[in-house]
Amino acid sequence: MSKKRVVIAGMGFGGLSAAKALAGSDVELTMMDRNNYHLFQPLLYQVATAGLEEEAIAYPIRALTRNWKSATFLLSDISGVDLDSKLVITDAGEVPYDYLIVAAGSRTNFFGLQSVAKYAFDLKRLDQAEDMRNHILLMFEEASREPDSEKRSALLTFVIVGGGPTGVEFAGALRELIVYVLSQDYPLISLSETRIILVEAADSILTAMPEKLRNYAHKKLVAMGVEVMLETRVVGASGESVELYGGDLITSHTLLWSAGVAAAQLDVKPQVERGAAGRIVVQPDLTIKGYPDVFIVGDMGCCMSGGLPLPMMAPVASQQGAYAAGALLKRLHGDEPEPFHYFDKGAMATIGRSSAVATAAGFNLSGYIAWAAWLLLHLYYLIGFRNRLVVMMNWTYAYWFQERQVRLITAKKRRAALIQ
Amino acid sequence: MSKKRVVIAGMGFGGLSAAKALAGSDVELTMMDRNNYHLFQPLLYQVATAGLEEEAIAYPIRALTRNWKSATFLLSDISGVDLDSKLVITDAGEVPYDYLIVAAGSRTNFFGLQSVAKYAFDLKRLDQAEDMRNHILLMFEEASREPDSEKRSALLTFVIVGGGPTGVEFAGALRELIVYVLSQDYPLISLSETRIILVEAADSILTAMPEKLRNYAHKKLVAMGVEVMLETRVVGASGESVELYGGDLITSHTLLWSAGVAAAQLDVKPQVERGAAGRIVVQPDLTIKGYPDVFIVGDMGCCMSGGLPLPMMAPVASQQGAYAAGALLKRLHGDEPEPFHYFDKGAMATIGRSSAVATAAGFNLSGYIAWAAWLLLHLYYLIGFRNRLVVMMNWTYAYWFQERQVRLITAKKRRAALIQ
Repeated sequence: MSKKRVVIAGMGFGGLSAAKALAGSDVELTMMDRNNYHLFQPLLYQVATAGLEEEAIAYPIRALTRNWKSATFLLSDISGVDLDSKLVITDAGEVPYDYLIVAAGSRTNFFGLQSVAKYAFDLKRLDQAEDMRNHILLMFEEASREPDSEKRSALLTFVIVGGGPTGVEFAGALRELIVYVLSQDYPLISLSETRIILVEAADSILTAMPEKLRNYAHKKLVAMGVEVMLETRVVGASGESVELYGGDLITSHTLLWSAGVAAAQLDVKPQVERGAAGRIVVQPDLTIKGYPDVFIVGDMGCCMSGGLPLPMMAPVASQQGAYAAGALLKRLHGDEPEPFHYFDKGAMATIGRSSAVATAAGFNLSGYIAWAAWLLLHLYYLIGFRNRLVVMMNWTYAYWFQERQVRLITAKKRRAALIQ
Repeated sequence: MSKKRVVIAGMGFGGLSAAKALAGSDVELTMMDRNNYHLFQPLLYQVATAGLEEEAIAYPIRALTRNWKSATFLLSDISGVDLDSKLVITDAGEVPYDYLIVAAGSRTNFFGLQSVAKYAFDLKRLDQAEDMRNHILLMFEEASREPDSEKRSALLTFVIVGGGPTGVEFAGALRELIVYVLSQDYPLISLSETRIILVEAADSILTAMPEKLRNYAHKKLVAMGVEVMLETRVVGASGESVELYGGDLITSHTLLWSAGVAAAQLDVKPQVERGAAGRIVVQPDLTIKGYPDVFIVGDMGCCMSGGLPLPMMAPVASQQGAYAAGALLKRLHGDEPEPFHYFDKGAMATIGRSSAVATAAGFNLSGYIAWAAWLLLHLYYLIGFRNRLVVMMNWTYAYWFQERQVRLITAKKRRAALIQ
């Protein structure tokens, strides 16, 4: 009997943990991703705020898998799945499978706001983080030679939409970049000319956190100089202003959108049931109904738990990837897997120097200790000794010297458009 | 009396050393560059061969100059100089000067070969090095799924034109990338399928070196597996093949052009005398004849020494930058400067692991000791403690683990075209 062909579509947190669990098992493994690296997305905002170089949060997939037997990597864009013919459709051809783990992740959800989709920045990919960094630094360069104070103000106002962890962490990191670094770099720009506005539609930031931590984070951001606008919705953008629901305009050249994600686009045939944000509804074993050989893990899958879909975040994806690999091997050997059970390890967000919030197993932490825990956990989950070393070095350097060296403008136009 | 306005156009090695020499003096200093960073060009080839991240060889200009009084930086493209009106023409407006130091550097010289200019890669800018790295890795990705052996061979053949230090160093580094790293990453590609061809028009590589060192470098490259073609000229390229003088074709998707440089394009009015490669002919004090307040330093200037123009290389630019700053200050105080005198510290090129050639003060070194000297000198001349640390870490890591982690494909199309 020939080996079963297992395909993993997408090498984010879900795909990677599935691949690790399958390495060394008696299957023919094909891994696919549009990039040749695994990206540690939780630190993208630090690349965007000149705190880390891009290379520090990306790890070459082939460096991980080079010693795995019967495993191949295919650099390809995955466009669809044909469930009945058991084929994955990619720009490098159709790839047959016996078992499939779909881990294609998510994309930014602009909720149909076309002007926002056109002008806003978002942080899902490495090149987008580089674009964001280039843009922030360019705004300061332009402001430093702009005599008109209204125009300067528009250049130096930064609007962030979405008070989740990404929005909060980005707002804090941007404020520190400006206060500690850029205020020294641009002696002609006064700190009081700069504005960072965090806009959130709900009545609180970090809604997934306990109230005490939400309040801590809110107060901390305000104390750092970030303006927090709650119960406010952004409905449009022009590149020179941001439009709020009700018609108010904020004059600003910069809009970061971190207000929502949707499942990655994937043409599944025949059509399958989709939940909110386009996520594919899965069975308790993470497979598609009627297709016990196709698992959906991570952001792509809509897995219910306690009446709600599990959140679109890295720990869910990692646990589901490992589960799917195990379930697949069980099924391969004629056993039936137990249903997937998510173990909630908690949540955390960093706000600034020595300041973070964390909740785990009923404990709420804030301040220095939460910040130290955040640093250690992120270093732990980063892949590769070298990346850990580089990130640790950057963090130490930034902490001691209040300096961020990666403040390079590598292009004056947005490069993301060029990515295939 | 108001302070004299001194403008430095270009912040490469020449501009930087001039700026350092002028820092703290009683002038109003304006520095200009199209980038917001100083680039350590001699290590660009290591970025192109996945040995270093881009950020490690770039240093933000504002980080250098933030504590200098009466000094400003203007991010701008410099297009011309109006000598009689004493204006520098940039895309950020016209900037008046009392004294001007032109240090605009050089661009790649394709000697009018339009098909080569269109399809060849060259290494002058950071984005070009990233493009080169992306392209090399993409060739391996494509070859790994290409069944046709002729097509595979074309994908895995790399042609480098120009046997100067850049061509030699790139050829050696690429060969080591393939032998130590990519051969592990792509188990389906055999080392014997890959070819690196170094093409040189003269009868020897490294023509500026003594014969003994030229021979050492040549033998070493061949022993490493690089094919060296002497007395051979490339006259055309198509993206899928490289055409040699005489009509022979090498089937290859990759052509790196390092066969010549010319002075950067700069519209000087009124027209001034130009030497070979468009360099501006300078007086013994590096000024333009009739304009004792305009200094030309580095690759832009044609400064004769012993009947020959000084070479277009970093040490010349650095010495000239420092000289011009001193001469300018002397002239400002009514003194006449001594003529510029170049102190030749020697030349070196690295070929591979523990292998380099160096010549200085009549001594010729090769092998391990030249390699160690090369490493130390490059670390010494790099700017910034952090960059030295990162580069040293990368080199140590590569030496111990025979691994290069920066092998990321950050874009599947050439991004250089987007740079303004």
